[in-house]
Amino acid sequence: MSTKHFFPTTEGVVVLGLESLVSRNAHLALDAPAKVVYDKTHSPSRVSVISGGGSGHEPAWSGYVGDGMLAAAVNGEVFASPSAKQIMAAIEHVPSEVGIILCITNYTGDNLHFGLAREKALGRGGRVEILRMTDDVALGRKQTENLGRRGLAGNMFVLKLCGSASHAGYDFDTCYNIGQSVNDNCVTVGSSLDHCHIPGREHHRSIPDDTYVLGMGIHNEPGLHEIAPMPKVDDLVADMLKYCLDPSDKDRAFVDFKPDDVVLLLINNFGGMSNFELEALTSTVRRNLKKDWKITPTREYTSCFETSLNAPGWSLSLLNVSGIERATKTPVSQLLELLDSDTRAPAWPKNGYREAKEAKQSAQTDKLAGADIAAGPKVDPATIENALRKACDAAIKAEPDITKWDIQMGDGDCGEAVVGMCQGVLKKLDAGLCRDGVLFHILDEVDEAVEEIGGTLGAIIAIVVAGFTTQLRQLFAQGDTKAQLDGKIMGKAAGGALRNLMGYTSAAVGGRTVMDTLIPFCEAFEKDGDFAKAVEAGDEGAKSTAGMKAKFGRATYVGEQAESTDMPPDPGAMAAAIFLKGLLSGLPQ
Amino acid sequence: MSTKHFFPTTEGVVVLGLESLVSRNAHLALDAPAKVVYDKTHSPSRVSVISGGGSGHEPAWSGYVGDGMLAAAVNGEVFASPSAKQIMAAIEHVPSEVGIILCITNYTGDNLHFGLAREKALGRGGRVEILRMTDDVALGRKQTENLGRRGLAGNMFVLKLCGSASHAGYDFDTCYNIGQSVNDNCVTVGSSLDHCHIPGREHHRSIPDDTYVLGMGIHNEPGLHEIAPMPKVDDLVADMLKYCLDPSDKDRAFVDFKPDDVVLLLINNFGGMSNFELEALTSTVRRNLKKDWKITPTREYTSCFETSLNAPGWSLSLLNVSGIERATKTPVSQLLELLDSDTRAPAWPKNGYREAKEAKQSAQTDKLAGADIAAGPKVDPATIENALRKACDAAIKAEPDITKWDIQMGDGDCGEAVVGMCQGVLKKLDAGLCRDGVLFHILDEVDEAVEEIGGTLGAIIAIVVAGFTTQLRQLFAQGDTKAQLDGKIMGKAAGGALRNLMGYTSAAVGGRTVMDTLIPFCEAFEKDGDFAKAVEAGDEGAKSTAGMKAKFGRATYVGEQAESTDMPPDPGAMAAAIFLKGLLSGLPQ
Repeated sequence: MSTKHFFPTTEGVVVLGLESLVSRNAHLALDAPAKVVYDKTHSPSRVSVISGGGSGHEPAWSGYVGDGMLAAAVNGEVFASPSAKQIMAAIEHVPSEVGIILCITNYTGDNLHFGLAREKALGRGGRVEILRMTDDVALGRKQTENLGRRGLAGNMFVLKLCGSASHAGYDFDTCYNIGQSVNDNCVTVGSSLDHCHIPGREHHRSIPDDTYVLGMGIHNEPGLHEIAPMPKVDDLVADMLKYCLDPSDKDRAFVDFKPDDVVLLLINNFGGMSNFELEALTSTVRRNLKKDWKITPTREYTSCFETSLNAPGWSLSLLNVSGIERATKTPVSQLLELLDSDTRAPAWPKNGYREAKEAKQSAQTDKLAGADIAAGPKVDPATIENALRKACDAAIKAEPDITKWDIQMGDGDCGEAVVGMCQGVLKKLDAGLCRDGVLFHILDEVDEAVEEIGGTLGAIIAIVVAGFTTQLRQLFAQGDTKAQLDGKIMGKAAGGALRNLMGYTSAAVGGRTVMDTLIPFCEAFEKDGDFAKAVEAGDEGAKSTAGMKAKFGRATYVGEQAESTDMPPDPGAMAAAIFLKGLLSGLPQ
Repeated sequence: MSTKHFFPTTEGVVVLGLESLVSRNAHLALDAPAKVVYDKTHSPSRVSVISGGGSGHEPAWSGYVGDGMLAAAVNGEVFASPSAKQIMAAIEHVPSEVGIILCITNYTGDNLHFGLAREKALGRGGRVEILRMTDDVALGRKQTENLGRRGLAGNMFVLKLCGSASHAGYDFDTCYNIGQSVNDNCVTVGSSLDHCHIPGREHHRSIPDDTYVLGMGIHNEPGLHEIAPMPKVDDLVADMLKYCLDPSDKDRAFVDFKPDDVVLLLINNFGGMSNFELEALTSTVRRNLKKDWKITPTREYTSCFETSLNAPGWSLSLLNVSGIERATKTPVSQLLELLDSDTRAPAWPKNGYREAKEAKQSAQTDKLAGADIAAGPKVDPATIENALRKACDAAIKAEPDITKWDIQMGDGDCGEAVVGMCQGVLKKLDAGLCRDGVLFHILDEVDEAVEEIGGTLGAIIAIVVAGFTTQLRQLFAQGDTKAQLDGKIMGKAAGGALRNLMGYTSAAVGGRTVMDTLIPFCEAFEKDGDFAKAVEAGDEGAKSTAGMKAKFGRATYVGEQAESTDMPPDPGAMAAAIFLKGLLSGLPQ
């Protein structure tokens, strides 16, 4: 557990954070002394749903303030209940002619302070009720007999549904009963790799390596079990689901899940999990739910809903919407509508389940998608095949030299890469690549073979081949039906390809890279349209890299001792020149 | 840096994560082999804005796919560029009759692979351009001469504005120019407490304690400076802002900020910062911007936009919207409209800047808000004052005993708390609390004094006093104009108060708490309406706690050795009984 923080203590941090939230949400107002965030737009004709608790759980609770969710949230210090005075301030900011529901997590301090606030508020008239949120299943019935269960992230379902019911104008009892029934039909279990650390407080015990905690809460409480070694993710998730769903666990089985019940899934980041892992855990839960329990959630939510500062843990919550329907006679469709309804509350996710109409593809886009590409000019199959084979053979033959040069300056894999590219091309030739002599097809396939190998050299050569092909295609496509496949047009394509390539790499002549071959080659080819002259220019460029100091790529990290005039030529530059010379040797002179 | 993870390696994790995202967003589709997420609703009549890069930056890039943002995102493995083949797949999924903009961060691999894809795509016709995002200011002009600057979270401004321009139907050049100008007018600097760790990879170097890294990137690259000891947050933020804004930093000053320019702020969580600290950092940045640079951002965004797995760091980005106006002639108002326009892209925050109409308070809600409370019955000022003083004096006198009993079983602060409550009441009496003999006012003020002290004992006593007051208020308000302030009605109120209290605590008779006094007292008072008898019942209850084993609260954690018949009475229960006896002694017999 890291104890490093930007803020050395928590002093003043709660209010600073609330200020930030309120400053970017026009519907929110802040009562800083009372640490209350409230919805300025909340109508007194609607039930006021209020929640709150300790800080350190951001975005809970203030991130859920907005139409269709909370009217106000009241925040204590880190992991400490707000006082009754603060809660009274929240109640006063969002008065209601209908009544107030205080949705609280079932911790001792929250019970007492919200309880006291309720007693005081009742004295002013109107209805004020407390709704306890108790979704945690880590502890069973026996252990929670006295104090009841804790509230965890399943709480968010209560806040959203109760809040949306209020916004929809439902009466007090309906709002309260829906909220209560959401809680009754919700189960959550958490797990974590470690505790979190509170700025300025003593170091809390760390969980040992290769161990995780099942049944972890959000206040650094000890969890239910510490499990080591770490099981496979699938097994870990399967175990967590059992705590939520197993009907034979007599001490739990808090919610009845019948076949075909409509079930929702909420995955909560305790704050320190990477989204990378959290999203993958969500899929793992979904797969396990389907495999082991034949449940496919109708809605899924994955986010930081209720954090434990930056604890590296998460929880999964399941809500049985059909169970709410059975208890409250509110149809599932209506409950889903409440759940899906928009809210300005910044931390509730956008509704991703709105219908999405697929765009239609036109004939033109089919063409753009590659369905129809002009065939282009033809070349003599035997000539092109011969030239390509000579080029590949020459480069493969040079592999020992290329490798030797590369070992002196790099990691020695250049020769292998060049052989890989050439063998890929040869394989395609063996399979009849040149059979029809369609030049663009041949070039595309050669490019594919080069690309397969990857690495910087592969990418650069693939870019120049693809660029050359594209330039040629454009030259032939520009309505110029008289276009001839001669040196001039190919040189022009090579020049265009070079200019494009130079947009993707900053390597230039003298940089000791393959560009020392490609730049003079393409420039000469464009200038005179003479392939033989261009190959010669490329070869000279390649040879000039001998003794040259690297400016780009991996070779730049090699120390000073390598900077001597004994330095070999650049292996990539040489490989390209050798290939081009081979190509030339295979063409009719 | 923690190396613990739920997934032991990254194998298969990228696709699992994308599956999760797509499963909860109806507009998204997944091409799993190519790791491409695309918007099924994207119309080919609009520019296709595509982005992507390595994974490990979630929600970037796929979380930004949706109308008005990206048409598609293509994802490599962790911190590794996707291949050209994958990028081609993205291009094919969202063909456009207008053109394709590939928004890329300026890393070598991305340049080459997106470059290759562009060259290949160009061959199919249509426009395809690359837009490089280069907002990082950690390295200055000299050091980035060859390779250019990196892209960081300021990128999100490019994606949002370019994507919204496309959705609004702007032509290719306008979309591209806006995107380019956004990048030209954006600066970002990152800082972090540590590196992150990639599941299954070797342990990366940890940053020492009391040190942070300025100019941190999102791929575990070394930062610009390691700074120790940790400066004050204000100084740290001021330093970061200098890198972005200082016009005298000739090697930087990448963006010109003129007075009164419209500026936006984006705070990005690298993934491992608690929201608690991140929100407070946002406010710190806002305050510093105002103080040192006279800048008040027109929009603020704070979220996980582009993470570095779960690195404990963050970045701040500033966008000069007026600069974009100057460069593109697009008015600021129009740019803000594009920025504010809704998008289904799940990771772009809701627009918190929509107008919010304040709800009007009615006369009735003013009453509920406490503006008008009935005065209620009057009592003899001298009698009530005398009784309260006797009660307070008795409890204060008993402090040494209360403390002694508490030290044996608890943390010894009970006596001090009781004295605090009583002194608070005495202070109010000295100030003339009973002057007018308005009972409800007196009770409210006593409750306030008790509440001030806090703690469980304070909360429970405050609840019972508030509940008693509220019950009395209701009894007098129920149209019963003949209601007499006698033992019967007060006993009824005490009974109601007790029942409410028991809803907030599960402590019962025999639990060794103050409830051992309050329960018999209230029950007896309700039964006979005889205060003296009730006080006696409460006193018996308090004394019965001697030798009793604790079941609730802190005392439950005391080990077995304390369980003996020598145990003192519960100090809270005794304090309540002593107070009640004092009260009784002060009333006319």
